[in-house]
Amino acid sequence: MYRNIKVIAFDADDTLWVNEPYFRETEEEFAKLLSGFETKNKIDQELFKKEIANLSLYGYGIKGFVLSMIECALELSNYTLSGKDIEKILDFGKGMLNHPIELLDDVEMVLESLSSKYRLILATKGDLVDQERKLEKSKLGKYFHHIEVMSEKKIEDYQNILSNLDIKPSEFLMVGNSLKSDILPLIKIGASAIHVPYHTTWVHEQVTIEEQNNAEYRTVNTLKDILPHL
Amino acid sequence: MYRNIKVIAFDADDTLWVNEPYFRETEEEFAKLLSGFETKNKIDQELFKKEIANLSLYGYGIKGFVLSMIECALELSNYTLSGKDIEKILDFGKGMLNHPIELLDDVEMVLESLSSKYRLILATKGDLVDQERKLEKSKLGKYFHHIEVMSEKKIEDYQNILSNLDIKPSEFLMVGNSLKSDILPLIKIGASAIHVPYHTTWVHEQVTIEEQNNAEYRTVNTLKDILPHL
Repeated sequence: MYRNIKVIAFDADDTLWVNEPYFRETEEEFAKLLSGFETKNKIDQELFKKEIANLSLYGYGIKGFVLSMIECALELSNYTLSGKDIEKILDFGKGMLNHPIELLDDVEMVLESLSSKYRLILATKGDLVDQERKLEKSKLGKYFHHIEVMSEKKIEDYQNILSNLDIKPSEFLMVGNSLKSDILPLIKIGASAIHVPYHTTWVHEQVTIEEQNNAEYRTVNTLKDILPHL
Repeated sequence: MYRNIKVIAFDADDTLWVNEPYFRETEEEFAKLLSGFETKNKIDQELFKKEIANLSLYGYGIKGFVLSMIECALELSNYTLSGKDIEKILDFGKGMLNHPIELLDDVEMVLESLSSKYRLILATKGDLVDQERKLEKSKLGKYFHHIEVMSEKKIEDYQNILSNLDIKPSEFLMVGNSLKSDILPLIKIGASAIHVPYHTTWVHEQVTIEEQNNAEYRTVNTLKDILPHL
């Protein structure tokens, strides 16, 4: 099935290393900080709304998340949140940016095994400087031909990558945890994709059965399960 | 002198369009906002220190600048700055991100003239999503083969670009306004560089005569003055 593949692109966050759970943990801390003003449910909802409202301006990543938390906290507290509490929100962000990297199971073995047969690239969304730092901390850089930090992961973004690589869609395989970002756009352009689900997915990345539209892709339980197919 | 050149890379901010003056204007607004707490001189100094302290964590760009302004404002006001004033700092950032693009003189004519003879790329630091948005607003995208948003512009970053382009240093010319980022690293790797100075330069980008170390590069007054040499 994958016999023409020349390049395999891996998503990074929650495919190679833990990411989304840190956002969930920070949202817990944020809700505690504002617990004098609103219910956890309301705080979660308002923060999500704020992130989505700011997404086109700030893009994905921790810095935009921190700016949205501050904006949300000011509004929910009716501008009475203390300066020290605002500083805590800045520190949430710094803690996330400085977080040690936690590789998921078998990542290094899988990359090592595939890197002799395919050109591997890393294709990820988020802050450029943060993703480069994570790749460096992960010590996985040696397995990748290069890193593509994408502002979005839509059809045209993948088409740009294929054009830069000068390969056909049938020669490209994407591996990732997000159906919306890592799988469905690839199927639409005639490339291959393998879904490795992760237990935590941001609401914004979730898709309905209708959006999946009978797309054909393989789902495996964990990353090492891609090896028998390649 | 430039007869082997195959690829010309242009810096974007303050080479193709106005950027640094918006930071200076925002610093003015920021100093006004904090004028009840400190002198303008002290505020400028502390903000610069904060930006440099956060640079490795936040990288270049507006979002990190806003986070540093908030942190600086909390400290300078001894955590007494009002929530409404914190919101004003967030709005400074949104204003910068939403700013219309102002092209510098003759940019389109120069790019059009060179794009038939050379492969042109855009090589810029800053936030990925912000630089892509500016390129789109500028309508200059059609002249560039692709855009390289770099987390740093050091020797190894340029070496990566050359390696991805699969060209020799002698085939690469960089055009930009920052001696530190756009000129000196290129000279050190044996590539060519043309300096187009801009009236406003961030202190962090300034270099001493010693750092220039007799590097050989051409300086022109305005962008169109590169044409007779190419």
